[in-house]
Amino acid sequence: MTEKPVALIVLAAGQGSRMQSDLPKVLHRLGGVPLVGHALAAGRMLDPAQVVVVAGHGADAVKKAVGKLEPEARIALQQEQLGTAHAVTQALPLLQGFEGRVIVLYGDTPFIGPETLAMLAAHPSDVVVLGFEADDPGRYGRLVTGPDGLERIVEYKDADAATRAIRLVNSGVLAADAATLREFLPKIGNDNAAGEYYLTDLPGLARAAGLRVDVVTCDEAETLGINTRTELARAEAAFQTRARAQALEDGVTLSDPATVWFALDTVIGRDAIIGQNVVFGPGVTVESGAEILPFCHLEGCHVSAGATVGPFARLRPGAELAGDVHVGNFVEIKNSVLDEGVKVGHLTYLGDAHIGEATNIGAGTVTCNYDGVAKHRTEIGAHAFIGSDTMLVAPVRVGARAMTGSGSVITQDVPDEALALARAKQVNKPGLAARLMQALRQKKG
Amino acid sequence: MTEKPVALIVLAAGQGSRMQSDLPKVLHRLGGVPLVGHALAAGRMLDPAQVVVVAGHGADAVKKAVGKLEPEARIALQQEQLGTAHAVTQALPLLQGFEGRVIVLYGDTPFIGPETLAMLAAHPSDVVVLGFEADDPGRYGRLVTGPDGLERIVEYKDADAATRAIRLVNSGVLAADAATLREFLPKIGNDNAAGEYYLTDLPGLARAAGLRVDVVTCDEAETLGINTRTELARAEAAFQTRARAQALEDGVTLSDPATVWFALDTVIGRDAIIGQNVVFGPGVTVESGAEILPFCHLEGCHVSAGATVGPFARLRPGAELAGDVHVGNFVEIKNSVLDEGVKVGHLTYLGDAHIGEATNIGAGTVTCNYDGVAKHRTEIGAHAFIGSDTMLVAPVRVGARAMTGSGSVITQDVPDEALALARAKQVNKPGLAARLMQALRQKKG
Amino acid sequence: MTEKPVALIVLAAGQGSRMQSDLPKVLHRLGGVPLVGHALAAGRMLDPAQVVVVAGHGADAVKKAVGKLEPEARIALQQEQLGTAHAVTQALPLLQGFEGRVIVLYGDTPFIGPETLAMLAAHPSDVVVLGFEADDPGRYGRLVTGPDGLERIVEYKDADAATRAIRLVNSGVLAADAATLREFLPKIGNDNAAGEYYLTDLPGLARAAGLRVDVVTCDEAETLGINTRTELARAEAAFQTRARAQALEDGVTLSDPATVWFALDTVIGRDAIIGQNVVFGPGVTVESGAEILPFCHLEGCHVSAGATVGPFARLRPGAELAGDVHVGNFVEIKNSVLDEGVKVGHLTYLGDAHIGEATNIGAGTVTCNYDGVAKHRTEIGAHAFIGSDTMLVAPVRVGARAMTGSGSVITQDVPDEALALARAKQVNKPGLAARLMQALRQKKG
Repeated sequence: MTEKPVALIVLAAGQGSRMQSDLPKVLHRLGGVPLVGHALAAGRMLDPAQVVVVAGHGADAVKKAVGKLEPEARIALQQEQLGTAHAVTQALPLLQGFEGRVIVLYGDTPFIGPETLAMLAAHPSDVVVLGFEADDPGRYGRLVTGPDGLERIVEYKDADAATRAIRLVNSGVLAADAATLREFLPKIGNDNAAGEYYLTDLPGLARAAGLRVDVVTCDEAETLGINTRTELARAEAAFQTRARAQALEDGVTLSDPATVWFALDTVIGRDAIIGQNVVFGPGVTVESGAEILPFCHLEGCHVSAGATVGPFARLRPGAELAGDVHVGNFVEIKNSVLDEGVKVGHLTYLGDAHIGEATNIGAGTVTCNYDGVAKHRTEIGAHAFIGSDTMLVAPVRVGARAMTGSGSVITQDVPDEALALARAKQVNKPGLAARLMQALRQKKG
Repeated sequence: MTEKPVALIVLAAGQGSRMQSDLPKVLHRLGGVPLVGHALAAGRMLDPAQVVVVAGHGADAVKKAVGKLEPEARIALQQEQLGTAHAVTQALPLLQGFEGRVIVLYGDTPFIGPETLAMLAAHPSDVVVLGFEADDPGRYGRLVTGPDGLERIVEYKDADAATRAIRLVNSGVLAADAATLREFLPKIGNDNAAGEYYLTDLPGLARAAGLRVDVVTCDEAETLGINTRTELARAEAAFQTRARAQALEDGVTLSDPATVWFALDTVIGRDAIIGQNVVFGPGVTVESGAEILPFCHLEGCHVSAGATVGPFARLRPGAELAGDVHVGNFVEIKNSVLDEGVKVGHLTYLGDAHIGEATNIGAGTVTCNYDGVAKHRTEIGAHAFIGSDTMLVAPVRVGARAMTGSGSVITQDVPDEALALARAKQVNKPGLAARLMQALRQKKG
Repeated sequence: MTEKPVALIVLAAGQGSRMQSDLPKVLHRLGGVPLVGHALAAGRMLDPAQVVVVAGHGADAVKKAVGKLEPEARIALQQEQLGTAHAVTQALPLLQGFEGRVIVLYGDTPFIGPETLAMLAAHPSDVVVLGFEADDPGRYGRLVTGPDGLERIVEYKDADAATRAIRLVNSGVLAADAATLREFLPKIGNDNAAGEYYLTDLPGLARAAGLRVDVVTCDEAETLGINTRTELARAEAAFQTRARAQALEDGVTLSDPATVWFALDTVIGRDAIIGQNVVFGPGVTVESGAEILPFCHLEGCHVSAGATVGPFARLRPGAELAGDVHVGNFVEIKNSVLDEGVKVGHLTYLGDAHIGEATNIGAGTVTCNYDGVAKHRTEIGAHAFIGSDTMLVAPVRVGARAMTGSGSVITQDVPDEALALARAKQVNKPGLAARLMQALRQKKG
């Protein structure tokens, strides 16, 4: 096995006009992340020295998305889309000085597995083409192989009947040393109907020059590319089916697997229980033994062992639930740390807050974290008791073992063990309800 | 092509005893509207001069529903259910003076398409029967055709082996000129096992009198009739499958198409994003580029471009969201207009309100629109800031650029740029929380 | 038919290591209740004189769960898992003095139907084995039958080709008189590869001693056992499919059957309407004509005729809704009785309360039922009007026809017909909002 450094080139310049969308194709989401993120995530397993994404249509949006997904990646711009060889050519200047293995991937082909990439990276031949045995080879280019490797790639339209009978076809993915790319890419012409420069011409040129060219194969399912929204919906279904089966194998309880949606990076521990209709956005970890009840929406959050969440709860980015925390129904948590044993049972919004251990948050509590201009923090100590309908006007601090009276608007800090009240005295006006109601009814007539 | 005026007769008198229901069969819902609404909606495409619905079982309820669906439609009463010809006969008096084409449809057959109806309306023959090639012709009446059109309809029980081998069968739908119906309906007898008058006898009588009788065909799927709840559930699934596929083709992003439910009249723009588990009731339009997050319920509302809704939001009839409005979690909007850029993030009820542009509505805000007898309106100006947990006791007006303090009950109008407060002063009672808790624990023992 | 008393022995000692779980296998949930609850529920139909559950792995947890499911059941402990005959032997001491029919069931085999159990109970033979015709007999033990009943059970590994061709196989379930078990169980040996005592040896020993041994058959689907989470997910799907079909047949309207989840004991009346995405936990009854809108979660509650619930509502144990009650969105009801015609429209938590008829509960109302140590009750009379955002600090009583002002914290009882207010006076500070916002913006810079 070679141990050459690896660089990835991810082609992501296409418009995807069949998607019927203004959004660049590679930014449509699959498993909660943009399509291009799947190729990047698989590539990350190779610990690449360099990653170049070739952007074109919607390049600014692609650049921004890639920046979040893979901050180390660099963007090459392909102004005109003149074919795959042309796209790779745009990436080469960014790999100046790089002398290892280059793997060319596609931003709209999300399922190539890390094992397949490892085979491409480690293969000793000069050029390696990723092929697969197609159930229905259709109009794919056929891979004609012989005793000394890949002899040629024959486009469907140029293939005779015998060649068309071949089921080993080209995925488009290719690996070659950087030097090989630099030598042969300039030799690819565009003398074809579309006037484009095709990367599929490279293996033939390399072989003609005496280089060793080979095929590595993968499952057909890995090569699934996305061209329409219907294909995207099918790919999403395939992704979810796999993720659900994996979760079951890992010992997660799913009340109805078909109604749990995972993101690419969701991590769920053994014996966690996930109810019906739970959506995991990116960045969620749920520890072993936690329970997510039905109708929950989680993103960018952590749920520790013994915690229960939902039903009808939303955990937004930065929600950190320690052990045995209880988050109940119609509760939203954002950018807040809830220490061990905190209870937030009902109808509450906690944002930009830290809640100390064993504190109880009453129904209808709101951290008023936004003053119209900026966001502010709320700090609540351990073993505190926040009465129902408490407004915590941030920045504000409630001490340990402190209490707030129901319906209080807390604008000043509350010391440890103090009771804070901001409440008008109750007045009962005898008979007035009956008279008021009578007056209202008369007025209505 | 004829250009005769068109009248529709929709048969909707049956009890549907196999539905196991007290609700008349045609009022069971499909795609969010009563079954009979589907036939009416398809018929509407023909711009009919007259629409008559023949009601019988649950006639009052059917009349009320039809009144909402198609205010122009008139109701003929079929007191006793004596067969389809008898039903059509009840409708004729309401078509007095009408001299165009009459199409007879069924309230429990929701999928006949507008193109099929247009063919029936425009066909030059005197009588036209709608048939289809059945995958399994089963017990359907066979359509025996010859060089000069439809020769006869043979009921399954009367058919010999050769006739039973025919796969072209009768849907029951029929078109004829009003005059033809008036002439031949009285000639139909009830000399059969059930003692009923069958519309299927009409084509034979017309042909025997020398009229031209023909067949128009449609897809079998269009003729699906509903007789049991299981069939209704299957029809709903078929309706949704079609609506979801159409949305994808139209360029709508559906995170999981199988968990989005459309109504008959739902309109969603290109590049709108619809998350998992979104239910569209009747009367919803979502503009291009809007986003509906998971777990939302919408009915009778409009969502403009750039708006985001949910997760866990409910938009009720009369909710109008302008561009870039944000409606967040656990928020209900009813009969309210939200101008450009309004933010309603959390745990809020807005009913009978108008909110000016760029106004921010704090968490836990409620428009107290009901005084126990009548509903009242709330008006909030532009660029206002409604503090969390503000109660807006309607009728009330909050001015532009005004603010309300968190936890305030606003019973009087607030002028532009004013700050309204209705709040008790906070008092901290040192050590009292600790003592109270100790007392409560002792009391409990 | 015999009329002997019946005892059940339910084997529930296995670890279920293939479940990848710390939870004993029989405690994984199906249809909302632990697996072992299904065998117990089916057995209950026989009105058994005795029920013994044999526990082993996680015996304490199994004992606790069985105690809730079937308080009359007794637990036999099988310290070491030495085979099915050994397990039954552990149960026999608890059946001392019992002289009727004993049926041996399995805690991980939830679908054996009451009719099948009735056949086993009533069968006149000395020993009766439950078999089934397997679609794919695979490695099941074959049941070799002859003119005088079951001749022998042949394990797959011991079967010749002719025997392997038999499709009638052993389910493991067995019925025999208590005396027969007492006589033959001690004679079963463990001279096999696993060194275990197998109950399947009993029929052979009984027959060799001249007893009559027979087979009763059931559908293969009834014998489905659960060994992995994937199998559990499939069993859940099968359970739900059956429950949904049954509901449709019973005249329940299900908007999308695939998104309604029933528990083992859910009871829904004819013409009730159940929207998309409704989860029924254990203990729910919904009367005829009630409507549950989409996105609801119900458990241990009762919904009467004419009531409407949801969307986005949660009814927890002890919620009792009388006729024509309306529970709207983002509302949680726990351990509370709502009398006829009560309306709770929005964003409310009612816990440990009783609400009198026709009372209206405003949006944002909370029963503050927990003081940090104990729970307390709230009583509200009939025809009362609770203003929005009322905090009801329990224990507290609001009288009939009384009102509370919006935003009031009610800490003292309110007499009948009185109006209770606890509210600060509103003050408008002209121009202050504009100045405040300007200051905040300057501060932020």
